Amino acid sequence: MADDAERRSGAGSGAKSGHDRDRDTTILTRLKDGSLKLYELEKELSPIDAIRVRREFMEQETGTPLENIGIFSIDVDRVVKRNCENMIGTVQVPVGVAGPVIVNGGYASGRFYLPLATTEGALVASVNRGCSAISKAGGAEVRILHDGMTRAPVFAADSVGHAAQVCDWVTVHRDELRVAAESTTSHGKMTGIVTFVAGTSVFVRLEFDTKDAMGMNMVTIASAKVADLIAQGTGVRLIALSGNMCTDKKPAAINGILGRGRSVVAGVSLTHELISQVFKTDARTLFEVNYRKNFVGSARAGSMGFNAHAVNVVAAMFIACGQDAAHAIDGSTCITTVDLTDTGVYVAVTLPSLPVGTVGGGTGVETQAECLKLLGVAGSGTPPGTNAKKLAEIIGAAVLAGELSLLGALAAQHLARAHQQLGRG
Amino acid sequence: MADDAERRSGAGSGAKSGHDRDRDTTILTRLKDGSLKLYELEKELSPIDAIRVRREFMEQETGTPLENIGIFSIDVDRVVKRNCENMIGTVQVPVGVAGPVIVNGGYASGRFYLPLATTEGALVASVNRGCSAISKAGGAEVRILHDGMTRAPVFAADSVGHAAQVCDWVTVHRDELRVAAESTTSHGKMTGIVTFVAGTSVFVRLEFDTKDAMGMNMVTIASAKVADLIAQGTGVRLIALSGNMCTDKKPAAINGILGRGRSVVAGVSLTHELISQVFKTDARTLFEVNYRKNFVGSARAGSMGFNAHAVNVVAAMFIACGQDAAHAIDGSTCITTVDLTDTGVYVAVTLPSLPVGTVGGGTGVETQAECLKLLGVAGSGTPPGTNAKKLAEIIGAAVLAGELSLLGALAAQHLARAHQQLGRG
Amino acid sequence: MADDAERRSGAGSGAKSGHDRDRDTTILTRLKDGSLKLYELEKELSPIDAIRVRREFMEQETGTPLENIGIFSIDVDRVVKRNCENMIGTVQVPVGVAGPVIVNGGYASGRFYLPLATTEGALVASVNRGCSAISKAGGAEVRILHDGMTRAPVFAADSVGHAAQVCDWVTVHRDELRVAAESTTSHGKMTGIVTFVAGTSVFVRLEFDTKDAMGMNMVTIASAKVADLIAQGTGVRLIALSGNMCTDKKPAAINGILGRGRSVVAGVSLTHELISQVFKTDARTLFEVNYRKNFVGSARAGSMGFNAHAVNVVAAMFIACGQDAAHAIDGSTCITTVDLTDTGVYVAVTLPSLPVGTVGGGTGVETQAECLKLLGVAGSGTPPGTNAKKLAEIIGAAVLAGELSLLGALAAQHLARAHQQLGRG
Amino acid sequence: MADDAERRSGAGSGAKSGHDRDRDTTILTRLKDGSLKLYELEKELSPIDAIRVRREFMEQETGTPLENIGIFSIDVDRVVKRNCENMIGTVQVPVGVAGPVIVNGGYASGRFYLPLATTEGALVASVNRGCSAISKAGGAEVRILHDGMTRAPVFAADSVGHAAQVCDWVTVHRDELRVAAESTTSHGKMTGIVTFVAGTSVFVRLEFDTKDAMGMNMVTIASAKVADLIAQGTGVRLIALSGNMCTDKKPAAINGILGRGRSVVAGVSLTHELISQVFKTDARTLFEVNYRKNFVGSARAGSMGFNAHAVNVVAAMFIACGQDAAHAIDGSTCITTVDLTDTGVYVAVTLPSLPVGTVGGGTGVETQAECLKLLGVAGSGTPPGTNAKKLAEIIGAAVLAGELSLLGALAAQHLARAHQQLGRG
Repeated sequence: MADDAERRSGAGSGAKSGHDRDRDTTILTRLKDGSLKLYELEKELSPIDAIRVRREFMEQETGTPLENIGIFSIDVDRVVKRNCENMIGTVQVPVGVAGPVIVNGGYASGRFYLPLATTEGALVASVNRGCSAISKAGGAEVRILHDGMTRAPVFAADSVGHAAQVCDWVTVHRDELRVAAESTTSHGKMTGIVTFVAGTSVFVRLEFDTKDAMGMNMVTIASAKVADLIAQGTGVRLIALSGNMCTDKKPAAINGILGRGRSVVAGVSLTHELISQVFKTDARTLFEVNYRKNFVGSARAGSMGFNAHAVNVVAAMFIACGQDAAHAIDGSTCITTVDLTDTGVYVAVTLPSLPVGTVGGGTGVETQAECLKLLGVAGSGTPPGTNAKKLAEIIGAAVLAGELSLLGALAAQHLARAHQQLGRG
Repeated sequence: MADDAERRSGAGSGAKSGHDRDRDTTILTRLKDGSLKLYELEKELSPIDAIRVRREFMEQETGTPLENIGIFSIDVDRVVKRNCENMIGTVQVPVGVAGPVIVNGGYASGRFYLPLATTEGALVASVNRGCSAISKAGGAEVRILHDGMTRAPVFAADSVGHAAQVCDWVTVHRDELRVAAESTTSHGKMTGIVTFVAGTSVFVRLEFDTKDAMGMNMVTIASAKVADLIAQGTGVRLIALSGNMCTDKKPAAINGILGRGRSVVAGVSLTHELISQVFKTDARTLFEVNYRKNFVGSARAGSMGFNAHAVNVVAAMFIACGQDAAHAIDGSTCITTVDLTDTGVYVAVTLPSLPVGTVGGGTGVETQAECLKLLGVAGSGTPPGTNAKKLAEIIGAAVLAGELSLLGALAAQHLARAHQQLGRG
Repeated sequence: MADDAERRSGAGSGAKSGHDRDRDTTILTRLKDGSLKLYELEKELSPIDAIRVRREFMEQETGTPLENIGIFSIDVDRVVKRNCENMIGTVQVPVGVAGPVIVNGGYASGRFYLPLATTEGALVASVNRGCSAISKAGGAEVRILHDGMTRAPVFAADSVGHAAQVCDWVTVHRDELRVAAESTTSHGKMTGIVTFVAGTSVFVRLEFDTKDAMGMNMVTIASAKVADLIAQGTGVRLIALSGNMCTDKKPAAINGILGRGRSVVAGVSLTHELISQVFKTDARTLFEVNYRKNFVGSARAGSMGFNAHAVNVVAAMFIACGQDAAHAIDGSTCITTVDLTDTGVYVAVTLPSLPVGTVGGGTGVETQAECLKLLGVAGSGTPPGTNAKKLAEIIGAAVLAGELSLLGALAAQHLARAHQQLGRG
Repeated sequence: MADDAERRSGAGSGAKSGHDRDRDTTILTRLKDGSLKLYELEKELSPIDAIRVRREFMEQETGTPLENIGIFSIDVDRVVKRNCENMIGTVQVPVGVAGPVIVNGGYASGRFYLPLATTEGALVASVNRGCSAISKAGGAEVRILHDGMTRAPVFAADSVGHAAQVCDWVTVHRDELRVAAESTTSHGKMTGIVTFVAGTSVFVRLEFDTKDAMGMNMVTIASAKVADLIAQGTGVRLIALSGNMCTDKKPAAINGILGRGRSVVAGVSLTHELISQVFKTDARTLFEVNYRKNFVGSARAGSMGFNAHAVNVVAAMFIACGQDAAHAIDGSTCITTVDLTDTGVYVAVTLPSLPVGTVGGGTGVETQAECLKLLGVAGSGTPPGTNAKKLAEIIGAAVLAGELSLLGALAAQHLARAHQQLGRG
């Protein structure tokens, strides 16, 4: 394995022949004088060599040794084509496991260890405590409420009358637009098309069942086809394939209301005894923390996030599992509710717009693929779509664990002490 | 180095003695029968061994080989204490470089290569194109408008009259609260304290100059001290150290309006010629894409994000540079403006709540530290605070590059083609 | 007519007989000693007398002469039953007319004088100037994009699984719910039913075509019927007939996105010449004011209103025309766009949630009915619904006039001078 | 008084001489042929005659008798100068009284009858029930938390660097800007000046103590002066005197967070017994309605309003009391909280941005002035400002009454029945 790591890292200078050394020197000179661009290296070198030479160039340019960035084991041939241009190596993000957590979902059923990639001390421990509470309570109940990835091109009409006509045209031609959209993809199914008008701007929000893919690319390509037909059919001008009513990678009410990606809800009932045992607090206090912080505080702050720290869990799971980390912003749209019940509390998280996939994107990078395998969701499910939904449910349960634990810690006023013990700041 | 990597990976089975093997077997048995908890491994084993045994346990439990997760070069002794509990290894996130980009900031000045950790194909290439445009235009002008990390405990008063009294008490005792707050930290300075009332809930938003630290922990510890004094002085009950008016890790208007972390603005003037040359479009089209997408579309979607994809750049820079990835949600709060000018366009990004630091958190992990060194911002600045501000300015310029490039691509309607050429979806 | 006014005002003390005087004195004594409640007066007296005696009681209690409040001409017999309890008279709100404005709508077509009830000096003059510009440009193009009044009861489920079942049940029983809903109304048609889940809370948003009625009451009664069936069929608990996802009388993204009441868009194209002539400014400046104020400023302020002062016009039209003044909050949700065109600008307003009616509510009060008649929209249209839509289109054009005029005034920096000339402050 | 009403109404045709009749006919002819504009009538006629002739013109143009609009008693000489252009008469809005409600405020203290101008049946009765509950509980505790009317001009800078300079310049010249601002007003005091940047747009939010005036005009005039100085001092271009960060007459997070106008909080503690007696429900149900509707529902709807129907009360009080009805949109920004307590519930409303005044605007119109007198707040207070604050506190208590009553009705599931009994829809 050491050999393997060495080869992949492109760091094995001992094995470099005189010929190779000369070639590298020439290339570095050309990079410096600008006759070769950094992104052209893969045209002249194998991926592994391109990465190494590019890193050497960076080291020389900045006077910074990049030793650790150069150590990696993933297969870069595919990565440089699909995941990352101008690659110089990798950063290693620590992965901890929380759990197991029992999940009783529509797709995920059983005990799961959760891989969390993070450098935020105390996060894994916190989620772990939440998993413990959930499992002791019999598991998290999880449901997928909606499933559909969206893209919304924006067009410019000549007038508001023209804009209204475009909407009518789309309604009338809905079926043929669907056929055209689906002709661009072997998997995706168009499940919705809605129009919105703002003055002369017309937004057409297309929704697709993207099976096990997160699906943004599939949807973008299909939308381009549909957008062309709309432009041809109505004389409206296409302004941008994404008109921000998708809404991709921005917090947006439309995602919260209509859903985007997988819409997940997860809940668990905790008895008074369990609350006392695991969280050293009581139902009323747990409830009050959630009420004053996640509702009154968020309302007062003009926040779109009615939760404690959903993004911590979403981001850590996304990075571990090869999801698009930027999607943590949509994915962490979350309402956390704590209901007082006769027996204790019922705690739930609602995640209307979790964009996840188990194929494509970063899911094939070896370390990330291992995390997906750990959860039993790598690659396409049977039938297609079930793996992505299973992953969404597991993340839903993980977020529930994280919320439970932080609310519990705040309730017990342990937060500051936890930070002090870590000696950070 | 191969040896080194082997040792660090904890994977060197060849070197394991019979004694070690027996010990591991015993421990695995205890983990399975529940007499030893996963998080207790570090009590019995060295960090590197604990990670290895925990990973072996996970492999056996889930039947999943975790070969690549086990290959890493970072120093885990510190990581397991400060960054990640229950560690089983790392995920390797590909790092590409964009740039160089010329930055004319108050703290960052010169040419910078931007490290971006991502698995989203086309992102690095896109930012790279934006950097090229910026540099050709003479560089991005960047300014820090405000600097202050916040925490807002929430208290429960008995009545609205009591709530009003608490606000008055805080105003009167401001100086002694500051002294108390600053007694908990060697670096931080309390720069603000504001009260908000919603019914019986009182929120006290404390703001600190945290120098080169991102500062959440420092601020949380100081807030605990202040919160205790307020509770003692007024009889109000502390409900939670974080009352969501901070607002940490949720999209929130209060951060956009009052700022949180580093508030950054970056802009660049592009001539008609440059727009045509780099983006194959014109000023009017670039402007119209931004207007209809980032303003009209975002307004219509009820979005808090008036930008194209700021989070892509923020998340990739954060992961590369050891920032808290979950903070990308606050950090990517962004308004992107394109003004039509006599000579072309002036494009700017405004990032009011970028929480970054160059010490603490994940900044000490070796691969991430190398990314910070690449930017010349590792560790404490001289004077303290200047490195973090420099990093904030560089990220501001990077976001500007990303916005420019995507707006340009949309304007030229190249987006779908770019995706198709990558063969993804 | 003077006699008539006197009679109605209940102020004609000269005509009061000794018997009446004694009766009144007795009643006033009972009101004072608490043996008769203010709201019980109509049980013992005719409406006109009840109003008079109640006012006299108020005068005595507070030592305040309420002479003018007692002068009115409207028929109070119906008002005290349908519009106002504990009535003591009326306030007189000045009505000015703006226009005529030419409207080219789907329902409103022709020249309209706009009645505006307001005490804000300069408003009528401002709208008038906008009307002038619109008419000179050939009229406002207006379209109704959507029409549907909504109510969303909220239920409490036992768990998230139960919540998901409730949604499924509603989907399956959609037709029978519609039949039940429509059995409660002679006019309304149920046009939509959508479910939303947040933890254990289930919201069922019902949408109706309410014809010429604004329709809140019709929809509330129908929703009560539907809510009972859902509770019976699923075992879920009804918490409130309005669960705030309606959303009634609060600013809410859901109304902006999905529409509520009448969704209206109005636009007009202004030439360079017209802009210069009417507004003493130019296309570029008009555009820039809208861009920096209504988009950049509103985005920066965390505002849900991307307009200049839509509510001024909506409130003034609503009060004049007997609409529910509180609905001005929903009705003024508005995005104002100014597009640069080859010939000048295209200005539009988008009002997604304008709740208006021409029957019911305050539309029958005589002064308000006269305003509706002035617009040719009093009572039921032929076919039903056309009058309300016509009114919505006229208000759309009026808002457009108001926006145009204020943007023009700001562009010409006349605002402060206008205020100074009015000598107010 | 009948004579008086007749004169004022301008309807006394019997008294019209032949000379007058000829003059009117001539004028009507000139209006019809366009040689005289509607708004020019006051140049040729006394206000009362101008109103009458304009109304006659409208009647002829539209074929609509406007008999009731022509009946009014208010003094139009001032109204046509200050409140309404192109006046044709008034609409009569029914006024009911609710209460008395006991208010224990910082400025308002005692029992108050609340005048509510509305055509929404059941509203006065509902508020009345809330007043009863509050008074039985000993009264509403009310506090003013902040007081300051704002205006925020927007400027265009050349670059983000220039924008940052403008902010610095404003900070440095704060004192001289205040002197200049205050030179424009005899009453107002500048209490704050804050700058915000979004790209090249600079917003300067000025805050004033406007004493008993609502103050928008005062603040606008002062802002014009300040804006000129800033433009002169920095070379920045003034784009609009109102840049929407004020934020005037739009829902906006900035008002909720920083306050605008009078920031009011009102609360009351209700015992179990009182809840049962007045509302026929219990503490837990009342609490749950508020939690699921006003928090969970509003959060799920992307609403900025965390209340049941605050605007109903604010609009009705505003119209009755001569406030700017369009300001109900800002004024009704409200968070309603219901806390479970040992003895029952504590219910509170928080109104951060209530723009009210007791001088200027519509406060001098006779009917509206009588409503203010009814509350003991007409005209300037001693010291100045106390009347406006007293009015704000009374409205706070009124909103509390309205919220209590609707929550109670929903809790008892009486809402639909109430509507059915009114026989409306």
